Amino acid sequence: MRPLYFDYNATTPILPRVFEAMRPYLTEHFGNPGSGHMWGLKAKRAADHAREQVAGLINCAPEDLCFTSCATESDNWALLGMGLDRPGAHLVISAVEHPAIIECAAHLERRGARVTRVGVDHQGLVSLEDVQRACASGADLISIMLANNETGALQPVAGIAAWAREQGIPMHTDAAQAVGKVPVDVAALGVDLLTIAGHKLYAPKGIGALYVRPGLELEPLLWGGGQERGRRPGTENVAFMAALGEACALAGEDLAAEMARQRELGRAFLEGLAGLEAAWRLHSAEAPRLPTTMAVGFKGLAAGDIISGLVGYDVAVSAGAACHGDTASVSHVLAAMDIPPEYALGTIRFSWGRPTSRQDVAELIQRLGRVLASLG
Amino acid sequence: MRPLYFDYNATTPILPRVFEAMRPYLTEHFGNPGSGHMWGLKAKRAADHAREQVAGLINCAPEDLCFTSCATESDNWALLGMGLDRPGAHLVISAVEHPAIIECAAHLERRGARVTRVGVDHQGLVSLEDVQRACASGADLISIMLANNETGALQPVAGIAAWAREQGIPMHTDAAQAVGKVPVDVAALGVDLLTIAGHKLYAPKGIGALYVRPGLELEPLLWGGGQERGRRPGTENVAFMAALGEACALAGEDLAAEMARQRELGRAFLEGLAGLEAAWRLHSAEAPRLPTTMAVGFKGLAAGDIISGLVGYDVAVSAGAACHGDTASVSHVLAAMDIPPEYALGTIRFSWGRPTSRQDVAELIQRLGRVLASLG
Repeated sequence: MRPLYFDYNATTPILPRVFEAMRPYLTEHFGNPGSGHMWGLKAKRAADHAREQVAGLINCAPEDLCFTSCATESDNWALLGMGLDRPGAHLVISAVEHPAIIECAAHLERRGARVTRVGVDHQGLVSLEDVQRACASGADLISIMLANNETGALQPVAGIAAWAREQGIPMHTDAAQAVGKVPVDVAALGVDLLTIAGHKLYAPKGIGALYVRPGLELEPLLWGGGQERGRRPGTENVAFMAALGEACALAGEDLAAEMARQRELGRAFLEGLAGLEAAWRLHSAEAPRLPTTMAVGFKGLAAGDIISGLVGYDVAVSAGAACHGDTASVSHVLAAMDIPPEYALGTIRFSWGRPTSRQDVAELIQRLGRVLASLG
Repeated sequence: MRPLYFDYNATTPILPRVFEAMRPYLTEHFGNPGSGHMWGLKAKRAADHAREQVAGLINCAPEDLCFTSCATESDNWALLGMGLDRPGAHLVISAVEHPAIIECAAHLERRGARVTRVGVDHQGLVSLEDVQRACASGADLISIMLANNETGALQPVAGIAAWAREQGIPMHTDAAQAVGKVPVDVAALGVDLLTIAGHKLYAPKGIGALYVRPGLELEPLLWGGGQERGRRPGTENVAFMAALGEACALAGEDLAAEMARQRELGRAFLEGLAGLEAAWRLHSAEAPRLPTTMAVGFKGLAAGDIISGLVGYDVAVSAGAACHGDTASVSHVLAAMDIPPEYALGTIRFSWGRPTSRQDVAELIQRLGRVLASLG
């Protein structure tokens, strides 16, 4: 049976073009960008080029970008670099953030900071009014994700950032699931800090970036050599920078067309679902969403049983985020959305990507139908 | 002219066998180890195998190892994870540590900690007596590197660690330049924390590890998902873990034979140097040293001029560490060793590795001779 991968939000394959872009820096061009000879220079040029490619996709200056080891590091850096690990600091986040924000916020609380968690509506959306209320006594940072990893819901980040700027409150957004899938323009968004994850857009696991608005004072998270203009020490991962750069260039080339294609796959998936004998609901159905993600709650079923059944048919899906893949309990995202338990417990996240075809979706529906029939 | 790379301490090429070990995880086996399906399982198995390979080289249990993004992260984690960023904490380091320790220690000082920097003798060696004196009023952590990146001098870490354990003082060693080049056995060394750098032993830039003695309480540096048994969140860089694992396996297979071969290259290099018309001295000449590193001070010359001359002959060397490649001033290591300025300012670090041949050394001497003659 042909394997079907519908877990792109967990991680994406590295596209051949991306692999070819990084391969020279894993083989012949192995220099350290800090070295003052040809080996070093070639590596430095690759890093510079990659930075321009990433900056091009999110519309910032290359020097406003720092490469990191992953989105978790970027998220942690945004919070810790703003000096929030102290009594008196106030951080405002949403209740549906990624664990990289939630757990870091809990750490800040243990260090004496105050953290306000803004709830979401049944669609999984934060409202500007709730953020404003949370900031009534002032705030040192707002961190609201751009696209939710479980539901794909797109938060109203631009509106919140516009208000935050008026108030002089810095704003971070975790755009790990958004970059490369929908237009992400830091100028249009108006955020001060933005997290990028390589492995969510066809670059490898082990590379990320953080956009830092010029003029924003952000303390380093790590201390050492002068890499990344003194902001992020450690010998540069040149190969993965080249990969992330190429992945961003690729994403930018046909973003609108690819989004339309992804939405079409989503429509086909929903049509297929409608033809199955099962009771289900699409979470965040009325919210603006990523074109590549649908979280579906199957009534009265356990997500673990559906996943096991699909594994038997060589289909990869997820019950939630891969980083906390506990299938027996309702995720914090669905809990915050107040999804009825009979749907929440049977929730499967389907996510697709550039290599996914209409035929893949058709076969997914077939196999899913058999699994649901066996459980029904 | 055939390029000659004598800057292995800055970074090493990825050996073909190491590249082949990681390639599948950059192509077909792209899963997230946190995913509960076949893609995830294959990735998890690769990560587990890599951890066993690294553990095998340094003689620890696999579960005592955490993968990190680089040695700088490992070093910072060791210091920050021990909770030293607070008034009253006392850290003891040597004066010749890598910037990842020195700059992190300065950060701790700004947070109120006390840092004692133990000096070195003319050979670049720390003495147990000086460490004992520094700890007279107690200490929360000792961090002394195993092999110096500039001179290759091997510090008496085992002796210091044995004493520290008696005193109940935890000890970290930055073994970034040692692992894979000389035997590194955490049990024999008796340290509590040990830093590994992938790109110094033929694995890629962008992967490192930290050994953490069982039972030692170390706070995470990053907060998020449950990866690395909850100690280091962020989706695992499976490909580079596989690479580091293979590099460690390879290093362990013929360490003694390769060390003997490297020492022989060093002897040939010194013989060649002796035949040149130049006044020079080998730094740390009487210290135990890495078999792959020689820092040579050319009397009355400027390191930058020698490097420029060698670049013209397609030879890569370094004036010091690549991460602070300022050639106009004396490095903190040579300053701490109190090297006479007429030798210190003309210091070049020559470092070689597995791909280096006798013929390479002979050609290096020829080209170096021409450069020195042109400057003399």
